[in-house]
Amino acid sequence: MPKILKKSSVYKSKLFNINEAKIEFHNETLTYEIISGTGNGAVLIIPIIDNKIIFIKEYAAAVDDYMLTLPKGKIDSNETIYEAADRELQEEIGFKSNKMKFIKEIYLAPGYIDHVTYMMLAESLEPSSLIGDEPEDLEIIQVEIPRISTFLGKNKIIDSRVYAAVNYIQNNYE
Amino acid sequence: MPKILKKSSVYKSKLFNINEAKIEFHNETLTYEIISGTGNGAVLIIPIIDNKIIFIKEYAAAVDDYMLTLPKGKIDSNETIYEAADRELQEEIGFKSNKMKFIKEIYLAPGYIDHVTYMMLAESLEPSSLIGDEPEDLEIIQVEIPRISTFLGKNKIIDSRVYAAVNYIQNNYE
Repeated sequence: MPKILKKSSVYKSKLFNINEAKIEFHNETLTYEIISGTGNGAVLIIPIIDNKIIFIKEYAAAVDDYMLTLPKGKIDSNETIYEAADRELQEEIGFKSNKMKFIKEIYLAPGYIDHVTYMMLAESLEPSSLIGDEPEDLEIIQVEIPRISTFLGKNKIIDSRVYAAVNYIQNNYE
Repeated sequence: MPKILKKSSVYKSKLFNINEAKIEFHNETLTYEIISGTGNGAVLIIPIIDNKIIFIKEYAAAVDDYMLTLPKGKIDSNETIYEAADRELQEEIGFKSNKMKFIKEIYLAPGYIDHVTYMMLAESLEPSSLIGDEPEDLEIIQVEIPRISTFLGKNKIIDSRVYAAVNYIQNNYE
């Protein structure tokens, strides 16, 4: 196993921390740049209702276009992943869950981003809303589980974490 | 559609560029932080041989552990995506492809990272090696297509782009 000899921050903004890590392998020592979030990670929620998954379409600033994603958001300080997931669900799609379950951790590109997203499964939904901080209304799309693959094929910009969620659903609900 | 009023770099390192974008929505103007790569994006290759996919396990610096991924790497300047994919294939798994095809673009977390990975399908493989810049040998794992879901379930740290690749394969090769 390689060994991290030294890790230090070279830049910190409101959201991101860029670190430099000196890592020793068998024959050489290399320097890597690593992006860390400044928070506690995020939750991504798979809401299931009547054998359908609730997706959202949301403006994605980095690509200046709309992306297909699922309800998600940063975990606030002193929030558990369950609390964060239930809050985001109420803010983004107007439901709360009476059966929220942690499924697994998702890593974006673990070679250089240490960001962790906690994938949550939300069943037994009932209407309940909270005001979120979204700058515009989100488009909400319910898709029957057997039709998800066809639906994904019609979307160009998809949050990579959606594929992890779909993989879980297709292995467990079809 | 929201409108980007202004976008400016606030920090630039060897690999990353952090931008601030002022974005106008119907009722408010917000400032977003966006991470851009400094290069031309990356390729991720799905190598298929005898109805098996060739995965790799590689040290992932940001999480200080081994991750499951596919052959991939940055596109060098003046390389096409096909050339980059064929080079990475030869460096990382010792094959070249006589049938390389571009499938789709993958976005990590398009809300705040503009990084694009070009997903490539590599068929008709034949042995051919190039020396890469990997600091240690990569573990290479061939998995039969019908067994991929079970195989993924046994790995804790998985590059999110692997799920996008697996989704493609399961829809087209099963």
